[in-house]
Amino acid sequence: MIGNPMFWLVPVASILALAFAWMFFAQMMKADEGTDTMKKIAAHVRKGASAYLRQQYKIVIIVFVVITIIFSILAYGLGVQNPWVPFAFITGGAFSGLAGFFGMKAATFASARVANACRTSLDAGLRLAFRSGAVMGLVVVGLVLLDISIWFIVLNYFIPEMEGGYKLMTITAVMLTFGMGASTQALFARVGGGIYTKAADVGADLVGKVEANIPEDDPRNPATIADNVGDNVGDVAGMGADLFESFAASILASALLGAAAYINSPLQNNAVIAPMLIAAVGTILSILGVFLVRTKEGATQKQLLKSLGFGVNISAILIVIASFFILKMLGLPLGIWGSIIVGLVAGIGIGQSTEYFTASAYKPTQKIAASSSTGPATVIISGVGTGLISAAVPLGIIVVAITLSFGFATGFSFDANSLNFGLYGIGIAAVGMLSTLGITLATDAYGPIADNAGGNAEMSALGPEVRKRTDALDSLGNTTAATGKGFAIGSAALTALALLASYFEEIRMMYVKFLDKPDELINGTKAIDAQFIDFVKHYELHLMNPIVIVGIFIGVLAVFLFSGMTMNAVGRAAQKMVDEVRRQFRDIPGIMEGKAEPDYARCVEISTKGAQREMLTPSLIALLIPVVVGIVFGVPGIAGLLIGTISSGFALAIFMANAGGAWDNAKKYVEEGHFGGKGSEAHKATVIGDTVGDPFKDTSGPSLNILIKLMVMASVVTVGVAVSYHIL
Amino acid sequence: MIGNPMFWLVPVASILALAFAWMFFAQMMKADEGTDTMKKIAAHVRKGASAYLRQQYKIVIIVFVVITIIFSILAYGLGVQNPWVPFAFITGGAFSGLAGFFGMKAATFASARVANACRTSLDAGLRLAFRSGAVMGLVVVGLVLLDISIWFIVLNYFIPEMEGGYKLMTITAVMLTFGMGASTQALFARVGGGIYTKAADVGADLVGKVEANIPEDDPRNPATIADNVGDNVGDVAGMGADLFESFAASILASALLGAAAYINSPLQNNAVIAPMLIAAVGTILSILGVFLVRTKEGATQKQLLKSLGFGVNISAILIVIASFFILKMLGLPLGIWGSIIVGLVAGIGIGQSTEYFTASAYKPTQKIAASSSTGPATVIISGVGTGLISAAVPLGIIVVAITLSFGFATGFSFDANSLNFGLYGIGIAAVGMLSTLGITLATDAYGPIADNAGGNAEMSALGPEVRKRTDALDSLGNTTAATGKGFAIGSAALTALALLASYFEEIRMMYVKFLDKPDELINGTKAIDAQFIDFVKHYELHLMNPIVIVGIFIGVLAVFLFSGMTMNAVGRAAQKMVDEVRRQFRDIPGIMEGKAEPDYARCVEISTKGAQREMLTPSLIALLIPVVVGIVFGVPGIAGLLIGTISSGFALAIFMANAGGAWDNAKKYVEEGHFGGKGSEAHKATVIGDTVGDPFKDTSGPSLNILIKLMVMASVVTVGVAVSYHIL
Repeated sequence: MIGNPMFWLVPVASILALAFAWMFFAQMMKADEGTDTMKKIAAHVRKGASAYLRQQYKIVIIVFVVITIIFSILAYGLGVQNPWVPFAFITGGAFSGLAGFFGMKAATFASARVANACRTSLDAGLRLAFRSGAVMGLVVVGLVLLDISIWFIVLNYFIPEMEGGYKLMTITAVMLTFGMGASTQALFARVGGGIYTKAADVGADLVGKVEANIPEDDPRNPATIADNVGDNVGDVAGMGADLFESFAASILASALLGAAAYINSPLQNNAVIAPMLIAAVGTILSILGVFLVRTKEGATQKQLLKSLGFGVNISAILIVIASFFILKMLGLPLGIWGSIIVGLVAGIGIGQSTEYFTASAYKPTQKIAASSSTGPATVIISGVGTGLISAAVPLGIIVVAITLSFGFATGFSFDANSLNFGLYGIGIAAVGMLSTLGITLATDAYGPIADNAGGNAEMSALGPEVRKRTDALDSLGNTTAATGKGFAIGSAALTALALLASYFEEIRMMYVKFLDKPDELINGTKAIDAQFIDFVKHYELHLMNPIVIVGIFIGVLAVFLFSGMTMNAVGRAAQKMVDEVRRQFRDIPGIMEGKAEPDYARCVEISTKGAQREMLTPSLIALLIPVVVGIVFGVPGIAGLLIGTISSGFALAIFMANAGGAWDNAKKYVEEGHFGGKGSEAHKATVIGDTVGDPFKDTSGPSLNILIKLMVMASVVTVGVAVSYHIL
Repeated sequence: MIGNPMFWLVPVASILALAFAWMFFAQMMKADEGTDTMKKIAAHVRKGASAYLRQQYKIVIIVFVVITIIFSILAYGLGVQNPWVPFAFITGGAFSGLAGFFGMKAATFASARVANACRTSLDAGLRLAFRSGAVMGLVVVGLVLLDISIWFIVLNYFIPEMEGGYKLMTITAVMLTFGMGASTQALFARVGGGIYTKAADVGADLVGKVEANIPEDDPRNPATIADNVGDNVGDVAGMGADLFESFAASILASALLGAAAYINSPLQNNAVIAPMLIAAVGTILSILGVFLVRTKEGATQKQLLKSLGFGVNISAILIVIASFFILKMLGLPLGIWGSIIVGLVAGIGIGQSTEYFTASAYKPTQKIAASSSTGPATVIISGVGTGLISAAVPLGIIVVAITLSFGFATGFSFDANSLNFGLYGIGIAAVGMLSTLGITLATDAYGPIADNAGGNAEMSALGPEVRKRTDALDSLGNTTAATGKGFAIGSAALTALALLASYFEEIRMMYVKFLDKPDELINGTKAIDAQFIDFVKHYELHLMNPIVIVGIFIGVLAVFLFSGMTMNAVGRAAQKMVDEVRRQFRDIPGIMEGKAEPDYARCVEISTKGAQREMLTPSLIALLIPVVVGIVFGVPGIAGLLIGTISSGFALAIFMANAGGAWDNAKKYVEEGHFGGKGSEAHKATVIGDTVGDPFKDTSGPSLNILIKLMVMASVVTVGVAVSYHIL
């Protein structure tokens, strides 16, 4: 049934990933949680995080029920969908939710243990934190590969054989719906988590740091637990759901593009499983990489970074070598190997450019810090200026990546007859970029764990030696968080482009189905191969069609509206937090002397409610716009919409993430003693910059990752509606 | 030669406009300039503005010489251009420069006289200020119409008759190059002027208001003259050059689209002169409107706004009626009348939405003001959030305007055979929006004149009664400035789309020329009419072509890079101004006591030099990107580039203009006594917001207007290069 026995590597890799995730989790749980205070604080954070997740999943379930009903009507009533679609959709959401749940459990169980391990040695702390992060990384890739394996086997069994390669087209199209489920769940995780974490952070900072003049993570600050919870729900669960979706969507889109490109070829099955195999082998190599991460006592920041980098780089180098043999064994053209490398290098390049524009070791951030001598206004101006400029680099990288990954797959032919293969090349580049996600996501999830460990150490008043170690880990986490954000956005853009390509393939297939003789030769080309340009003609998918232009404008509109709404949501939710913290400082006697405990739970509750209330409208807009545009403007409107959203959304996301990261580090640079150091006017100016940057880099920016993928996903899944029913 | 005698209305309208401009100027010059101090201050500003313009024009001339040489080589050497192109290019730049020169002369001569008129009555002040603004408005439209008249007559005479309507295609294509000249000069006027004005403003505010605690326009502030000069070079000369270009380009693009749509029809000539006639009649109606603007003593802000609105609205209503008869007399389909109305209504709608999002009478700005209670960070966050959301409304208006103006012109048919007519409809909509530019630009130029009059009154220590009157005029100017900015961006977007359409028509014509039998019937359609889709096929101008996608990404890249660079340019130039003002406060004894005069000229010089140095790199990037993309990626790359630039540039421009305007008015709202009023912490927070907003709304935002038009212009003019020589 399955065609090529190499496929079985996919479920094997999945089970390996889940098994090692379980092992790392069990090892971590065996570690000591430290003093009673440490345990108590960790319990507070854990309780808050679980409460949040429970609340969020409740809403997500309602949304899923509604969407599943709509899909069922479309599938069984109007007949524009495959009957498997609703089920694939549900498992995507469920598996993504599960991954978020496990990842966050691991992170919240780890923080006190990491702080405690730092009482022994830096290496012990690093390894525990990193392996706890690896739980998240491996659960994500493991569950994606598991879901893919199950569905590929099930659909291969149940879907009848069809002529002309249509069976695999159908299978891969249904499986893509699984990505839609993951996307929907990721939307709420990113938007809700993003609003939560920054409402808590901004609220805690504005009253705590600025008004009451107490340090970060001070236990007297009622919002400090909510702030720590936020790191987990935003940076762990949110980031995990985001990359879960990118990983799944890049593999599934490439599988579909492979099925379409090789539709009349005996290689079709191999082209479909190639992306799965690359991801599977990358996962196994990621596990290997995780074991390579270790350090020695007294390691400098640079050495720590090198330790992490060693594991990541080894995995990346090995996947390059391995994928050559995978392609060779599958008999696929080796040009595709170039596309894989392009994807990997692009991912590294975007990460590097993020680091250049946001780390205080480089000029851009130092200049922002220097502008603090003329006050907060110039800090904001130069941060915005630098952020805007910084978007140009990843945009340029994506431009080169598209050109090269397409070109390698087609021998640098850009005419219509090469399109199928070129689009497959773009999809494969996205898979290449994400192939070692197991370990790159481990470095991302490591950040908030180290951050929380530092928070725990601070609140538990551990010794300066311990805090120095947690600080070293935390500072390393800030760097990995910045490059991780760049990587998440870059992979989202490339994944979205692969999804866009599969959108085109889907409508092409719907169009080709209407043909009588797909194998007839027209001017020496088979009709089925020559259809791309005819279907361009059929749907008027060209740039002179005003409907396409209108679609592009609506795409940009969606991006600006969505990010404006998430930005304002943080403002409103933070305002409520500020009021509550002020109230507690005023009403609870002895709180500032550390004699009375603040009401942490109330702050957690406020952030939770605020996030849930605020995430709904932007999320619904993201889900509804593609459907409405499809109904009003049809296929050309959708095509424009998607490319408008992807291009401008990617740019805005990079701008926001980098401006936010640079402001954060400019503040830290001043705190290190530059331009007057802590407490100076310059410092106050950069604190304002940092606060402005919070929703930039942790709410609106990352939420755009989801938007650009989800809009394409929603369009792919509802493609039948736009084709069959539209007004203009 | 000219075909239809109605054409002669165009030169007549041009001469009328210039004659009335001269009359208003002469009347204004006869008015008394007031006291010796008033004269002295006005002379300072005038001298500074002239010095700046001289310096800027020197650089512009060098750029023009270089580009003209390139065009000459292309025209005579490589033969891809028409030999008239270099000359048309030069006159466009020269006329635009002339309009800027006259407009600024009028504005700088008027300020003291307006202040002096306010010593008599509010009506006298308003009329003098408004009619001085009308000098600019009428000179701009008069010179555009003059240049169009001359070239249309000259080219009709010199270009030989050709078969199949190619003569008018050639004429209109050459005339479009005139727009390229205007565009290039506008680029430097907007970018240079924008950097100048905000370097001076931010520098004056940071040291004057924030550090030395002296009020705005205080004569003790060394940067105050530079600040006043800035209003003239940025808001008068810059805005004038911007709209000069939109006015010219919308008419010329529509003429070309008309020539293409009606290429085989006896109506071709009428379709070409229709946009010229609409603009000519609109100009005559604008002159009428100017005479209708008057007010009575003690008028409230609302009444003043009504007075201005009365003149503008009457002109708009009359042009709607008149254009019906123009189309009727030309025998053109009356559906186009719908397109004109769509353009006019869209312009009003965008202006209204700007007012809603930036005026303190409405919720968005009040909410930003309210967020000042938690400090500057929340002011910035809510300003950015609101600004992003606010971009959605004009984007939505443009979406509707494209759909309707295309639809009205084609009877709502969106298939390939209607394209020619639909694109003409979009062009005509842009002309409709700009038809009454004579008077709308008068209201824009009025703003900085009133502002400078207020500055003059303040520095000359005139009585409180006079200052109350200038304040009333100034406050009115702020409102008209905001709606004027919205209008400028909206018209830039619609003009850019019309230019994009004419780009497509130009390459289509180049392609059609290669056909043997353009009149042969294929499936019942003449070959020449059926070409749109074939040429889509030929150039692969569809959304699946990766080169198109790459182009779109580069377009977004250009927008972000360009606005980041202009933003940072203001930061750097302002820093130099801050250093100089601090130095003068330190080194010139008695300056703070008002005993010694500051060195105003030095500050003017610093702003001038800063602006000239900083404007070059972003400007060259704007000019070079389309050429480089054309050479590397050819026509599909350019097509993507342009639509990417227009869509994201428009959105970013609106975001920046509205966020900046809202911060400005949020500050004023607090100053009116809300949330603690002047001097409170809330006020300080909004002052920071206002300073951040300065480069948003007056440098980067408006510069994007030019970028989106110039990139298309440069592509249209160098179309032969991209078609004949490209790598991919």
